[in-house]
Amino acid sequence: MDLATVIGSVLAWILMVAAILVGGSSLLAFVDPPSVVVVIGGSIAVIMVAYPFANLKTLPSVMMNTVFAKPSEPGVLIETLVEFAEVARRDGILSLENAAADVDNEFIKRGVQMAVDGTDPELIETIMEAELENVILRHQAAKGILDGVGKYAPAMGMIGTLIGLVAMLANMDDPSSIGAGMAVALLTTLYGALIANLVFLPMADKLALRSSEEVLMKTIVIQGVMAIQSGDNPRIVEQKLQTFLPPNARAAADEEAA
Amino acid sequence: MDLATVIGSVLAWILMVAAILVGGSSLLAFVDPPSVVVVIGGSIAVIMVAYPFANLKTLPSVMMNTVFAKPSEPGVLIETLVEFAEVARRDGILSLENAAADVDNEFIKRGVQMAVDGTDPELIETIMEAELENVILRHQAAKGILDGVGKYAPAMGMIGTLIGLVAMLANMDDPSSIGAGMAVALLTTLYGALIANLVFLPMADKLALRSSEEVLMKTIVIQGVMAIQSGDNPRIVEQKLQTFLPPNARAAADEEAA
Amino acid sequence: MDLATVIGSVLAWILMVAAILVGGSSLLAFVDPPSVVVVIGGSIAVIMVAYPFANLKTLPSVMMNTVFAKPSEPGVLIETLVEFAEVARRDGILSLENAAADVDNEFIKRGVQMAVDGTDPELIETIMEAELENVILRHQAAKGILDGVGKYAPAMGMIGTLIGLVAMLANMDDPSSIGAGMAVALLTTLYGALIANLVFLPMADKLALRSSEEVLMKTIVIQGVMAIQSGDNPRIVEQKLQTFLPPNARAAADEEAA
Amino acid sequence: MDLATVIGSVLAWILMVAAILVGGSSLLAFVDPPSVVVVIGGSIAVIMVAYPFANLKTLPSVMMNTVFAKPSEPGVLIETLVEFAEVARRDGILSLENAAADVDNEFIKRGVQMAVDGTDPELIETIMEAELENVILRHQAAKGILDGVGKYAPAMGMIGTLIGLVAMLANMDDPSSIGAGMAVALLTTLYGALIANLVFLPMADKLALRSSEEVLMKTIVIQGVMAIQSGDNPRIVEQKLQTFLPPNARAAADEEAA
Amino acid sequence: MDLATVIGSVLAWILMVAAILVGGSSLLAFVDPPSVVVVIGGSIAVIMVAYPFANLKTLPSVMMNTVFAKPSEPGVLIETLVEFAEVARRDGILSLENAAADVDNEFIKRGVQMAVDGTDPELIETIMEAELENVILRHQAAKGILDGVGKYAPAMGMIGTLIGLVAMLANMDDPSSIGAGMAVALLTTLYGALIANLVFLPMADKLALRSSEEVLMKTIVIQGVMAIQSGDNPRIVEQKLQTFLPPNARAAADEEAA
Repeated sequence: MDLATVIGSVLAWILMVAAILVGGSSLLAFVDPPSVVVVIGGSIAVIMVAYPFANLKTLPSVMMNTVFAKPSEPGVLIETLVEFAEVARRDGILSLENAAADVDNEFIKRGVQMAVDGTDPELIETIMEAELENVILRHQAAKGILDGVGKYAPAMGMIGTLIGLVAMLANMDDPSSIGAGMAVALLTTLYGALIANLVFLPMADKLALRSSEEVLMKTIVIQGVMAIQSGDNPRIVEQKLQTFLPPNARAAADEEAA
Repeated sequence: MDLATVIGSVLAWILMVAAILVGGSSLLAFVDPPSVVVVIGGSIAVIMVAYPFANLKTLPSVMMNTVFAKPSEPGVLIETLVEFAEVARRDGILSLENAAADVDNEFIKRGVQMAVDGTDPELIETIMEAELENVILRHQAAKGILDGVGKYAPAMGMIGTLIGLVAMLANMDDPSSIGAGMAVALLTTLYGALIANLVFLPMADKLALRSSEEVLMKTIVIQGVMAIQSGDNPRIVEQKLQTFLPPNARAAADEEAA
Repeated sequence: MDLATVIGSVLAWILMVAAILVGGSSLLAFVDPPSVVVVIGGSIAVIMVAYPFANLKTLPSVMMNTVFAKPSEPGVLIETLVEFAEVARRDGILSLENAAADVDNEFIKRGVQMAVDGTDPELIETIMEAELENVILRHQAAKGILDGVGKYAPAMGMIGTLIGLVAMLANMDDPSSIGAGMAVALLTTLYGALIANLVFLPMADKLALRSSEEVLMKTIVIQGVMAIQSGDNPRIVEQKLQTFLPPNARAAADEEAA
Repeated sequence: MDLATVIGSVLAWILMVAAILVGGSSLLAFVDPPSVVVVIGGSIAVIMVAYPFANLKTLPSVMMNTVFAKPSEPGVLIETLVEFAEVARRDGILSLENAAADVDNEFIKRGVQMAVDGTDPELIETIMEAELENVILRHQAAKGILDGVGKYAPAMGMIGTLIGLVAMLANMDDPSSIGAGMAVALLTTLYGALIANLVFLPMADKLALRSSEEVLMKTIVIQGVMAIQSGDNPRIVEQKLQTFLPPNARAAADEEAA
Repeated sequence: MDLATVIGSVLAWILMVAAILVGGSSLLAFVDPPSVVVVIGGSIAVIMVAYPFANLKTLPSVMMNTVFAKPSEPGVLIETLVEFAEVARRDGILSLENAAADVDNEFIKRGVQMAVDGTDPELIETIMEAELENVILRHQAAKGILDGVGKYAPAMGMIGTLIGLVAMLANMDDPSSIGAGMAVALLTTLYGALIANLVFLPMADKLALRSSEEVLMKTIVIQGVMAIQSGDNPRIVEQKLQTFLPPNARAAADEEAA
């Protein structure tokens, strides 16, 4: 689980609530159901226009993944692949069938299975890269929606504020109510800014980073499976795959290996 | 029909109207014909300057397509193409003439027809890719216009507000009318924001996604027709085309096939 | 002539004037010569700093071209080129000398003339592509300036408004004059927005589209001349060139040919 | 000297001063030394954080160059190179030694000298292209700083205005001083906008254009020196180099040559 | 140490404080602990959501590096590499073992060590380029976070101001407190602007430049080590590596060498 995301999210909202309470206002002054409906309802409606259901459906699982998925350690991944390369070299590639079945990582499992089945190497690569490509596309689609909410929520906030201002200015019989009217009008802008900057834009940033991590993992796996399939020397496989690690991680892996 | 677009569009406007009514204003306070003319008329005029008639003419049909076109299922598409590959392999490519005539998809039909006619494979590919390229260009042109309205409508709104403010400030004889004057002045900004954010910008986002879906479909068809034309093994054709599908869709297709 | 540009431009300004008059103000309240000088004069001065005279000199002709140039019909262009290919095949390439002299299109004329003169095919292509490259650069330079005015005019408007506000606030002896002072101060912002959004930004958009049209035309001509020069079969030339057309235009051309 | 830059710069400031005086204010109302210090001093301080001294040191000479450098005429450049090609063909490449010494253009001189010295052609090209690359990098660095000032100066202006507003609002004992306080607060925003839009952003635009001109020149010289070195026919050299000129310049060059 | 960064940072804050004091306010009017908590705490919380801990952990060291790292002189670097090339040519590559041990630069040391160990040249290049790639990625990640703070801090400032305004407007019983309330509300916007423009955005700019410098250094080292490994003539190595220097640095290096 990505603790930073959870802690950061909770902390951000606590700070906002604290800022309100410390300022001496009651939280109630900041809750206006119609404003909530305009900004959140309006954003949802517009997002439905902007993105197909198919993409919207995958959004929650992608977001959950971003927060809760335990990213594989590239070092562990490389170890597994090097181990497989050793087994394949020693006992033949068919002996990998059982070993692969025990692996957690679905992507390695499918890749090794194809190698065991004697699938044409080029086809293995095409299929694995197509899957990598699909992951990238799915992440881009999800990031597009998160960025979309980050763009449309503030716009809905501004529209709500304009509606509030026009309503207030149009019947300004009682000057003493101007303050309250403007306060309510500004709430939608505040809601829009909170939704965009406390939730969706940072989630989009995090997703982009998670996506590049997953691309790195899958690239390592593809390289590893291809090397195993062609029966490369396990030492060479290790050296090749370790070039994907940052230098300090590489040093650590070396020590461990020593 | 893309229900999400229709529901989202209707919902967004209902929410805006509800926000006004709940706030205790009458809808009439939000309707000012001259403001409508400045924002909508001004946007149309500027769009005429910015984009050639030829492109503007195709806009409605592209937008209708975005909303109402039933996107082909890539799985079904692949099935059809694999079936054709089987027929072509079993009975010769000429036997596809009748089968192709029954297909809904114009792009497959034309491609298979060229293969049946014995057109040079390279020319088939050039012609089909040129058509794909043209679809991309047409969609880009339409998206450009939608984005253009999303850019110019708020600008017209701001211009209208500036005109309203200057008019109000220039003859401020009656201070009690200031509120009403400002309310009217703000209406154009509100209109511009509504037009851009509730209609044109989300439609542009949706069009971009629809366009990439159509590119995917047409790419699958081109690959499929080329494979049929060269008499590839239907199993290989299937494996190749399925790499274009997301992994879950691929699994589904496999089960179905099994 | 590009009627849409002319109609759109005139319509936009009529709407703005109408909006002022309908609002009950006199047009005079919107004319302030010093504000005009700050925004227009300031923009011109800054544009002189930002762009070399050489580029500024070509701007009017490029803008005139954008509005008044009759774009060649790609279909007609292709017909001409196919006709030339037929003549060249039937009577030899030298017989094109007279035919080429009658063509309106300078670019075809020069290209065919080089082919007739027996210039080295590679050199013909280099020269024609260099010319195409030059057209692209000239259009980009002009678009850069139009975008530049679209960027600097609003900035000048904001500067003018700031100057007006500071002046008004600094000597606020007579509170009754505040309204009039603010009205004048806002005028420069209005001018900047009008100049950018009613003239220069839409012209920049149109120019970009015209430029891509001209690139298409010149690309067709280059391909055609190269094919004529190498004595290709006119039918093949036609098929090749038609891949540059949108499918419906292609169908029309086919029917016409039939 | 680039007159347009000088005239434009002077004109822009004259117009701003005139706008103030015509508005009936004294210039003194627009001069506030602390505001000048915040915006200009703050921008300089931030620019020191953002860019290394090494780059800042070269900025003045690059800016001076932008304004005062006499750009070489590409036509004249080509003439010189063609002449050299003739001499080299007629009297051998060694005879260029003296001719090259008389040329103003340092880049041609160094290139020809290397050719005369019998340096390996590949190395000549590498060295000359490295120099071209360095010019591009130096210009990009300078443009980055100019754009940086265009970004940070308005930010410093806004910060100054916020400081002024907070100070004014915090001790609002004397309502009659509000106007004057706001006027001073707005001055920093005005200064930031003037510095960015009247000086640094247009200079950055001009520098980008000058840079692309110099790249064109240096590219022509590289092509020319390589052609001279390999003893190409002077006519061919001319035709090749002229493809870098715009068509009208090409026509002029031809007439002159005739 | 990068003095410019330190001096610029200190100077910028001194100027801001001076601007406050000169304006006659007390610094206390500009310190509001809840506002500090909202902007700084909120930014930290959001940054935790947006970026993984792994990246945040490396940020301080990357920032320290940006300020305190003494950048290698490319000229000195080239000298060292040329020297090594001479030693390798004269006494064989094994004799470099001791020389390399004395070098400060870790990257040269590792590269030469691999050459001495007789590692396969292709593998040396792959490993060194992977390390270069990792440096680029680490810098991009750090720059992404700095830019992220530069984006979220002003957003938090705006959110704080909106909260302050709503609180103030909602209980406007005492009109005399409006000024003070607005002053406090504006403080968060001021804080956000200061944090972004005085610290994080300029640091991001500087980091980008430092990163490109380090890429240049590492590229020179890679080229040099590869040349040493293949036993190139030291003169040729020098000429090749000097093409990475700006012309004036090159001249200086030549003189020194002479």
